[in-house]
Amino acid sequence: MKKVYFDHNATTPVLPGVIEAMQVYLREEFGNPSSQHDYGEKPGEAIEQARARVAAMIGSNPGELIFTSCGSESNNLAIKGAALANKTKGNHIIISAIEHFSVINSAKALKKLGFEVTRVPVDRYGIVNPDEVRKAITDKTILVSIMHANGVIGVIEPIAEISRILKDKNIIFHTDAVQTAGTIKTDVNELGVDMLSIAGSQFYGPKGTGALYVRKGIRILPLIDGGVQEGGRRAGTENVPAIAGLGRAAELAVKEMDKRAVHMKKLKDKLQKGIFDSVPEVILNGHPDRRLPGVLNVSVKYIEGESMLMLLNMQGIALSSGSACTSKALKASHVHLAIGLKHEDAHGSLLFSLGIDNKEEDVDYLIEALPPIVEKLRKMSPIYNKEK
Amino acid sequence: MKKVYFDHNATTPVLPGVIEAMQVYLREEFGNPSSQHDYGEKPGEAIEQARARVAAMIGSNPGELIFTSCGSESNNLAIKGAALANKTKGNHIIISAIEHFSVINSAKALKKLGFEVTRVPVDRYGIVNPDEVRKAITDKTILVSIMHANGVIGVIEPIAEISRILKDKNIIFHTDAVQTAGTIKTDVNELGVDMLSIAGSQFYGPKGTGALYVRKGIRILPLIDGGVQEGGRRAGTENVPAIAGLGRAAELAVKEMDKRAVHMKKLKDKLQKGIFDSVPEVILNGHPDRRLPGVLNVSVKYIEGESMLMLLNMQGIALSSGSACTSKALKASHVHLAIGLKHEDAHGSLLFSLGIDNKEEDVDYLIEALPPIVEKLRKMSPIYNKEK
Repeated sequence: MKKVYFDHNATTPVLPGVIEAMQVYLREEFGNPSSQHDYGEKPGEAIEQARARVAAMIGSNPGELIFTSCGSESNNLAIKGAALANKTKGNHIIISAIEHFSVINSAKALKKLGFEVTRVPVDRYGIVNPDEVRKAITDKTILVSIMHANGVIGVIEPIAEISRILKDKNIIFHTDAVQTAGTIKTDVNELGVDMLSIAGSQFYGPKGTGALYVRKGIRILPLIDGGVQEGGRRAGTENVPAIAGLGRAAELAVKEMDKRAVHMKKLKDKLQKGIFDSVPEVILNGHPDRRLPGVLNVSVKYIEGESMLMLLNMQGIALSSGSACTSKALKASHVHLAIGLKHEDAHGSLLFSLGIDNKEEDVDYLIEALPPIVEKLRKMSPIYNKEK
Repeated sequence: MKKVYFDHNATTPVLPGVIEAMQVYLREEFGNPSSQHDYGEKPGEAIEQARARVAAMIGSNPGELIFTSCGSESNNLAIKGAALANKTKGNHIIISAIEHFSVINSAKALKKLGFEVTRVPVDRYGIVNPDEVRKAITDKTILVSIMHANGVIGVIEPIAEISRILKDKNIIFHTDAVQTAGTIKTDVNELGVDMLSIAGSQFYGPKGTGALYVRKGIRILPLIDGGVQEGGRRAGTENVPAIAGLGRAAELAVKEMDKRAVHMKKLKDKLQKGIFDSVPEVILNGHPDRRLPGVLNVSVKYIEGESMLMLLNMQGIALSSGSACTSKALKASHVHLAIGLKHEDAHGSLLFSLGIDNKEEDVDYLIEALPPIVEKLRKMSPIYNKEK
């Protein structure tokens, strides 16, 4: 059976060149980079090489990067670390309504420690209005965290505009760039952010890798206390093979980013047109233009996304209805609800996240497979039959 | 040049069988285990297989294990997670004077949040007297964390005895078993602990892997909030290849543990005899018998450990003076000071941590290399020349 993977926002395959870059540190150069003897030398160099490569990808200095084990850890370190280090200045945090759960739940955890959290809304396209951020600011605000792009609906947020509002306000600005770093241009200075989260598993790097950019001068407390690794801001023996792979993935992303984006956008546009041409009563979720090149999110009215996913999966097509982190929970995504979708339409959503490995024939295969599935499910749908 | 690695407590090489077990999840089976489609299936199974294997190694139920990214994360999750989840019951924590920095500094971080920490002393062998734990308990004590074995001096602590003291006291008992799990028998029920930390990089597993055993019914808060992975207690896309490797390492450890211990102890005994026979004025640090099979720690009087390490490294021999986490800091180890060593003797310490890959000829090579180095350095030592 043909297999088609349209779930790159859940995780990407790892590029062969990335896997290759990891092997020597899995095998011969296994030493602990903190060692003073020769066994620590090459692993230590590998980490600094990776740091330079990731820094080049986001326009930062290498010394402003902290390696972590995943995007969720980066987000937790950013939110909790900055809040706890700066709590004498204030206890108010602003996030958006459509953040990743690692941001939302970090903020929730801080509430238990006496912090207050404001969630600014998004418009029907999923875009944060910078004025909403401005209005939410109080004299207790110490941290704002708005994602660079949303992984469920693909919308890109006006980070640079929000940054201008926060300028000279002594408020730390964090962005969760897990869906953008390595995929579209993501430059910490152009965006004007103080902290930025990265995950290797989202741009063809290894799982178990992440990084947090922390602008020089910004104080954060470690999430993982212990030894002096990562400048004392993230303890634990470094995962050298994975970090080397992350560096290689970053290097490849910089080199190939434009080409990749053109490829994915072309396929995504074809996919979108194909679906809207062949399936009636479909809603496009997210902004039509301000979006990630490979991400399409639609709601197919009157039926459940879960049923479509199951039937598509039986034909070898893998996609998701929303965030992978809660995909087993069968709940309507908070993102869909935040853009004003009705519950039933939120439940009928399909998230296509395309990748560099997708081909035109993958899109053709989907466009052929989807319409009969929708038709079959709608025939069985009580809502559909009631309305028609 | 011959190369000899005597720094297994800093990190172990990864076994070929472990690397092999990782490859399929690096390459073909790259999916996110949280996915509902086929790509998530085998990665999800790999995680549960690994969980069962690690559980078998420590005598727990698989459901009582949380995978983490390293031993330091496990210790942070245990200490901070249990303290914050149980703070309404009390705010007092007991640790020992010779814990790993990830325990000591987690406790320090909690102090800033209003917790009180008592550090119980150790005797001159590095052993915690269970009575000292008993005496330190107050009606506010909610957590005790005493390591199973110390990585610097190799001493094994009386965990089961301490557990009996804590029984029926409604105090959570955690042990940092990073130096024992996978190396010597480490059974959560025999030890009587509620939480136990594991690191794959210490028993020939991959870096970037760890686990925390949390006995059913014990409440902890996550360190990394976000999605529902690991029962909601550790968010973030699972590092599937590394976890599969950890599982394989655990399986091999269970199978080969006794044979490995015999091998390492034989070499360690030979090493110890060889050093004491050929170098005058050496102190054995830690208990003579209650120790890890492959760990020898000695202080060579009148000279600096750092200088010895450098000269040994020039002959291809890798070892450490203490904890890898601070080995670049050139400070006397808190462990050496806690057992009552004078500062100058603490500075003259050498930590030999042997592994399954060491051979008798490695020991012979060291015994030949060390005496002339010591002699040379002592000739240059002002303290030595003053005393002689």
